[in-house]
Amino acid sequence: MALIVQKYGGTSVGSVERIQAVAERVQRAVNNGDSVVVVVSAMSGETNRLIGMAKEIQAEPTPRELDTLVATGEQVTIALLSMALQARGQDARSYTGAQVRILTDSTHTKARIQSIDTDTIRGDLDAGRVVVVAGFQGVDEHGQITTLGRGGSDTSAVALAAALKADECQIYTDVDGVYTTDPRVVPKARRLDRITFEEMLEMASLGSKVLQIRSVEFAGKYNVPLRVLSSFQDGPGTLITLEEDGVEEPVISGIAFHKDEAQLTIKGVPDSPGIAYKILGPIGEANIEVDMILQNIGADDTTDFTFTVHRNDFDKALDLMRKTADELGAREVSGNHNIVKISLVGVGMRSHAGIASKMFRVLAEEKINIRMIATSEIKISVVIDDKYLELAVRALHDAFELDTPEVSLS
Amino acid sequence: MALIVQKYGGTSVGSVERIQAVAERVQRAVNNGDSVVVVVSAMSGETNRLIGMAKEIQAEPTPRELDTLVATGEQVTIALLSMALQARGQDARSYTGAQVRILTDSTHTKARIQSIDTDTIRGDLDAGRVVVVAGFQGVDEHGQITTLGRGGSDTSAVALAAALKADECQIYTDVDGVYTTDPRVVPKARRLDRITFEEMLEMASLGSKVLQIRSVEFAGKYNVPLRVLSSFQDGPGTLITLEEDGVEEPVISGIAFHKDEAQLTIKGVPDSPGIAYKILGPIGEANIEVDMILQNIGADDTTDFTFTVHRNDFDKALDLMRKTADELGAREVSGNHNIVKISLVGVGMRSHAGIASKMFRVLAEEKINIRMIATSEIKISVVIDDKYLELAVRALHDAFELDTPEVSLS
Repeated sequence: MALIVQKYGGTSVGSVERIQAVAERVQRAVNNGDSVVVVVSAMSGETNRLIGMAKEIQAEPTPRELDTLVATGEQVTIALLSMALQARGQDARSYTGAQVRILTDSTHTKARIQSIDTDTIRGDLDAGRVVVVAGFQGVDEHGQITTLGRGGSDTSAVALAAALKADECQIYTDVDGVYTTDPRVVPKARRLDRITFEEMLEMASLGSKVLQIRSVEFAGKYNVPLRVLSSFQDGPGTLITLEEDGVEEPVISGIAFHKDEAQLTIKGVPDSPGIAYKILGPIGEANIEVDMILQNIGADDTTDFTFTVHRNDFDKALDLMRKTADELGAREVSGNHNIVKISLVGVGMRSHAGIASKMFRVLAEEKINIRMIATSEIKISVVIDDKYLELAVRALHDAFELDTPEVSLS
Repeated sequence: MALIVQKYGGTSVGSVERIQAVAERVQRAVNNGDSVVVVVSAMSGETNRLIGMAKEIQAEPTPRELDTLVATGEQVTIALLSMALQARGQDARSYTGAQVRILTDSTHTKARIQSIDTDTIRGDLDAGRVVVVAGFQGVDEHGQITTLGRGGSDTSAVALAAALKADECQIYTDVDGVYTTDPRVVPKARRLDRITFEEMLEMASLGSKVLQIRSVEFAGKYNVPLRVLSSFQDGPGTLITLEEDGVEEPVISGIAFHKDEAQLTIKGVPDSPGIAYKILGPIGEANIEVDMILQNIGADDTTDFTFTVHRNDFDKALDLMRKTADELGAREVSGNHNIVKISLVGVGMRSHAGIASKMFRVLAEEKINIRMIATSEIKISVVIDDKYLELAVRALHDAFELDTPEVSLS
């Protein structure tokens, strides 16, 4: 008899038929003896339809009104899912974010949750009802409707699970769990039974877009066991938990990669204090996000500076760099937008040496040139030419034996 | 500098273009120096789309969830209209029924308004904002979303006007006012500059479906001046007010008619106390609404009883009447579903004799047989064969000179 929060995204509730399939799945959990709170997104396509109308009216829609508008998407889904449950004889009640007082700050379109009033929900659960809550939305202290931004329904689910001290927060998606790497690149990629929050954060930020980073952070902070499952097929999914003592962690959990990177290098910059700020300041002001940053000693008291940005921002960043290079008297600016970043991720890395050198050896054996390297406690990332992406990921997946649960270090 | 409540129905806000036209009209009122509160319905078609999805899921959708579902319709409109006003540089704020605490009872799908909190609205108006409120919806004391039933947006507008003590409540529709009769039947039909609440109630209940009866009753009760205007063309519309002393009321304001009537007659019923109840009891229990009721003395201590119902209920009512006739030992049951009801309406009727006889004379001259007659203080209704509808209405419109503002009694 567990308390479960289940979250279904837009694709999972994208039609009347799918909503009925979700109702069936929810009822199965209730029949297993669990108390269930369901968090749902808007039906797929609905949010874009609403935003489309808004933009026809106002090029940059007033954020307060945009929130009021798009919040209707989830409100439709909660009502329909509650009806689907009632139609199956399962008592259920729907609640908007405002109705269960998912209190947020007033930052419209990307509000942050501050608290949730769980009294009403607990009352319904005690009465044997399924509680269906609108994800993605909340209300500020003035009663204004707010939304949490893209992927906010995951955050709503985790926040509800934390507030209710739920036994598990299940995120239903169109994939059946977290994989060692993208199965489209490596057919032998294996679904992980469990992964730590830290690993999941690295995997998510590196392009394994199963969950929103914010919801994983949130789950980690409040120690909410998070499970990723498929809403279209049965299976245990992947459990995301705190690192547990006593459990032998695999050295490498997975290989993430990010295709949309571009690299910029400015060479022969006079090496003086504040040089990094002078180079990256204009990039930040232009709202361009910087991913990796490397600085090397160059020739003659100068320094070489390299960083990566999203490929879409490459041209803009290159223009800015040329201006900066003129101002600083740098020798040369170069760039490359045909690169990818590949990362090995694993908490076990902390206690094992030799991972990096093994990675570099595998790539060398495949004659793949490494352009940049960056490391963190549980991650090693390399930047290589994008034409080698598949080759590199497959070679690493094989070398680290990720297709089998046991990992060797030979 | 007046305080105006404007209400726009689903057709008036049925597309992005129409919402922009409404914004233009609202802004014109603001530019005239008026403070404006706008009440809107869901975009036309939206409520039916939502109900369609609900019925796919649940044959009889749970009322609580149905209200949560359809309330999204107006929420979309308030947000889009507020954006359209903002886009024109006019500050505006949207509010759902819950946000301005349009407090109702808990009778989902046909809730009744109990109170409205006007503090927020007044604050916005004082700050120079247009306030856009979702019609049709409210919230009960437990925070559950309720709706007021069909045409409820008119009621919302009138209730807001009453609560705010507005100078006028303007109902924008697809007609430019209240006419002496249906212009499709009588091309010479004339728009009335003003009409009393009582006349309007009789006109509305008799098939001139310009306004919901409830909103007219409400406006009359709270003495809210109500004006019906077109949202597609400019014009003064029709003002609906209390009868004013000193103003010479026209004898007849208009001619209403009702096409979907059917008549049932049970003859030779033993005349005993409670006979009307014995006849109409089963009709009421079957949820059939009865309109006109007539009882005549028949032959030999028996009585003849005639009543009208909606044409859709005719077969069911006839079956019930045959059973009743058997039980009561009545002589004969007959019915006719090819009839119409035509009514002359006018508060001036009270102080003028001869209206009825003039009406009967006009119909006789056209050789139209009258099957039933009923009268009230400000109305005379006759039931005739439906084939004579157009002929009768035109003859009466001419005879009472409704195409000219002055009415003669000659």
